[in-house]
Amino acid sequence: MKHHPAPVSRVTVLSGGVGGARFTRGLLAYLESAGHRTDVTVIVNTGDDMWLHGVRVCPDLDTMMYTLGEGVEESQGWGRAGETATVATELRRYQLGWDWFTLGDRDLATHLARTELLRAGWPLSRVTARLCERCDIAPTILPMTDHEVETMVVMAGDGPADLRTVHFEEWWVRLRAAVPAERFVQTGVAHSVAAPGVLESIQSADVVLLPPSNPVVSIGTILGIPGIASALAATAAPVVGISPIIGGSAVRGMADACLQAIGVETSAEAVAHHYRAAFGILDGWLVDSIDHEAAGRVTARGLLTKAVPLWMSDLTTTQAMAQESLLLAEELRH
Amino acid sequence: MKHHPAPVSRVTVLSGGVGGARFTRGLLAYLESAGHRTDVTVIVNTGDDMWLHGVRVCPDLDTMMYTLGEGVEESQGWGRAGETATVATELRRYQLGWDWFTLGDRDLATHLARTELLRAGWPLSRVTARLCERCDIAPTILPMTDHEVETMVVMAGDGPADLRTVHFEEWWVRLRAAVPAERFVQTGVAHSVAAPGVLESIQSADVVLLPPSNPVVSIGTILGIPGIASALAATAAPVVGISPIIGGSAVRGMADACLQAIGVETSAEAVAHHYRAAFGILDGWLVDSIDHEAAGRVTARGLLTKAVPLWMSDLTTTQAMAQESLLLAEELRH
Repeated sequence: MKHHPAPVSRVTVLSGGVGGARFTRGLLAYLESAGHRTDVTVIVNTGDDMWLHGVRVCPDLDTMMYTLGEGVEESQGWGRAGETATVATELRRYQLGWDWFTLGDRDLATHLARTELLRAGWPLSRVTARLCERCDIAPTILPMTDHEVETMVVMAGDGPADLRTVHFEEWWVRLRAAVPAERFVQTGVAHSVAAPGVLESIQSADVVLLPPSNPVVSIGTILGIPGIASALAATAAPVVGISPIIGGSAVRGMADACLQAIGVETSAEAVAHHYRAAFGILDGWLVDSIDHEAAGRVTARGLLTKAVPLWMSDLTTTQAMAQESLLLAEELRH
Repeated sequence: MKHHPAPVSRVTVLSGGVGGARFTRGLLAYLESAGHRTDVTVIVNTGDDMWLHGVRVCPDLDTMMYTLGEGVEESQGWGRAGETATVATELRRYQLGWDWFTLGDRDLATHLARTELLRAGWPLSRVTARLCERCDIAPTILPMTDHEVETMVVMAGDGPADLRTVHFEEWWVRLRAAVPAERFVQTGVAHSVAAPGVLESIQSADVVLLPPSNPVVSIGTILGIPGIASALAATAAPVVGISPIIGGSAVRGMADACLQAIGVETSAEAVAHHYRAAFGILDGWLVDSIDHEAAGRVTARGLLTKAVPLWMSDLTTTQAMAQESLLLAEELRH
């Protein structure tokens, strides 16, 4: 058994959906089991958000809420457990919208509640806090921005780019990322502002963690919001990442299709270098035991890297990963 | 058996929800059984419409679509048959919105489809036509206006009127119309315009029918849209109404609470006089057999009135009512 890191006051996590949510759940379980009273703030990607049938759907925020709150469908990692599809079945008969995107009935209640508050003029961050109240979620969950910054995919091909451009969710869910992406575009990002609390939580953190979320369209999207990457570069807190790539393939999802689009190799080593080269961040890096040789090479290039088991197969192994990330941060602080 | 009226080309109906929808269904069944190829246009009250949880709910349009199309819940006259409430149950846990307003799952699909198209910039009339396509609805269903004209109720009491004002649906469904209404207000009515086709359908009609809908907050609301009452007064078609009051009480709902607010007695006779005095319309009037004495009095005052059975207890009796209304119109045309 590893020793416990000394308690810290504040941990900030940058997260996408399933992988980040599971990691955060493990982190919270670890902190509780170790008796640490640590404030955790999670900054969540909202680039996958969309207006669908007139309601605002926030896939990553929902996955985070359901995973930390109550009733995520464990078998898939997203959506509500025991979900039904009465509304979606009926909607298909109108032949409108995205019938390939799953809108479960219970999930839909979240979207409707959110939409009601957004239409009443509340910013997404305030709406999110209100929705989290119901689930007794202890950490602070923040959207990366209150602005509508959506990730669009320009697919490879000939002809005008706008004819080859689809919403990320369409590329990811409907096309299964099978059509190569030429590039990703964040609509409206130039004029977007980090949501209230986001930059502060990075500045005041004792540790910042990057869970094994998609480095391009989840964490990369968050880092695209003006001010966030520079806050991470400037904070006194060590920034520790956990590789989403194990032995040359993505742990989950199709991260390789995203990495390919930005010219980054699908390897734990390449992702670490990408965070450093593109955003000037990352102080520590966890790779899977299978990538221990890469760990040596990355450390040799000046980024403290450890090889530890990175499969989040259950809560116990995920807690152990969270412990390792905090131990690495502790080592970096000294 | 009464004789059949001669076929006419165009019948226009002004309607609220349940009563008007059932009457229209009877009218269509009658026309079909008589072998008449008559175009029917239904102008529907949208004063009960509301934004609820960010989606647009149109109670009377929905009731009309479900009744003429498929699957209205017969026991209540509105909503979908075999309805479930998974989303509504979940929404209540967020403690938002109107938890006293029934949003069934299947019904919600209609609201979502409508909202998607409205948000895409379609006017309500075009949206309604699109939604009707799916249900194979033969008549043309038109909202009274594409503008958001909502009926508000100023409840009797002391203090500023705006503190005593609620949406009609709140007064009707939540408060069961038990708090006396001081007056009804149609928000935005002054600048509203009848939806495309509405005035034309009145001008070109051979017969205009006012079913036994609420004369104040259903038909009265339609008549409040600029141009509609004057089109009815000017059309060559006879305007025939069916009394919603039988023997001094409302056939359905709480029409007496509405009539009281505008100072009209709850009687078949008083409602006819109200249509004439307030809007300058009505050429013929059907009252229930029980009100045959009133029929004589009204006719004596210059409005041709017949007493016939007016309980829409089943489709057969409703078809007979429709036949009577067309016969009365025929008599008025000669």
